[in-house]
Order: sequence, then C-alpha cells, then structure tokens
Amino acid sequence: MTELDELQRRMHATYGERDRRRGIPATVAWLAEEVGELARAARKGTRDDQLHELGDTLAWLASLANQLGLSLDDAFARYANGCPRCGSTPCTCRE
Amino acid sequence: MTELDELQRRMHATYGERDRRRGIPATVAWLAEEVGELARAARKGTRDDQLHELGDTLAWLASLANQLGLSLDDAFARYANGCPRCGSTPCTCRE
Repeated sequence: MTELDELQRRMHATYGERDRRRGIPATVAWLAEEVGELARAARKGTRDDQLHELGDTLAWLASLANQLGLSLDDAFARYANGCPRCGSTPCTCRE
Repeated sequence: MTELDELQRRMHATYGERDRRRGIPATVAWLAEEVGELARAARKGTRDDQLHELGDTLAWLASLANQLGLSLDDAFARYANGCPRCGSTPCTCRE
C-alpha cells in the first residue's frame, strides 16, 4: 500500500537530482507526453500497456509536485469530503 | 496520509456512477484538460493554483484508473525499486 508522501519520496530519491537539472518546463513536457501515451493505451492498449502508462503518468505527476515543492497529499485534501464543488458523496453537481 | 487505494476508493464513491455514464474517452479528455490547467499553473500560477491543479489532475488520473479497472498502486510498483530502466536509486540512465 503506497502512500502519496512515500510515492513523492521515492521519486525524489530516484530522480530528484535529474529533476532539478531538467527544470519545471521540461518536466511538464514529459508529463504531457506520458498523458498522450496513456490516452493511446486507454483506447487500444493491452491491460499491461495501460498499467505501464498509468504508472509513468503518476510518476511524472509526483516529480512535478516535488519540483513545485508541493504535496500531492495536500493537493488531494480537496476531495477528502466528497466533491469539492457540491460537497456531496456521491457528487450531485448538475451535469 | 492518503494511500493510493484509498484515493481510488474515494473517487469511486464520489464520481463512480458519473464516470461510468461518461465513459473512458470523455475521462481522457477531462484528464488532458486538467493537465493543461496544471501546465499553466506551473508556469504562472500561485502556489494555491498549483496545488488545486495537482489535486484535480490526480483525481482524474484516479478516475481513469477506476474506469480501466486498474490499481494505481500496482501501476506504481514499477518504481518500487528505483528507476525501472536502470534499476538504480538514484537513476543512472544516460541523459
């Protein structure tokens, strides 16, 4: 069971120095590329492809959060009590 | 401290029914839109903007994983022992 904080720590240990050298715009570009690969895998990939691209997208998202000095756990707190717009679980916002 | 499985369960409870009705292509489109908002926030947003968009991107990524029937925890297992390409922590891949 991986916690969000642990996920960020692992990414920092593995790629922190590279991330710093690369800079935020290049990390955003990589994240966008991974989302593209995930979109393709969702449309026509195998289960393994989809799992692979979900992992890569999550990894780059954690790298970006690290570079911004922000916590994914704090970021997700908006969703802790249901939908951040209507406040309900399940969400009752108009579609 | 939020675990990846808990994050997916929360998203399922809040948006599971909507996600099913919406379908995977629409979820991919929303994820792409959130990544665009995150890219803008990373470039010129406040810390609060960045935190907001990190949370939304993570939320849509979890929704997509739910719809694909896949676990983000399983997906991130590739990174459990360092870089999945070179196997090292820190990564020693050629840049």
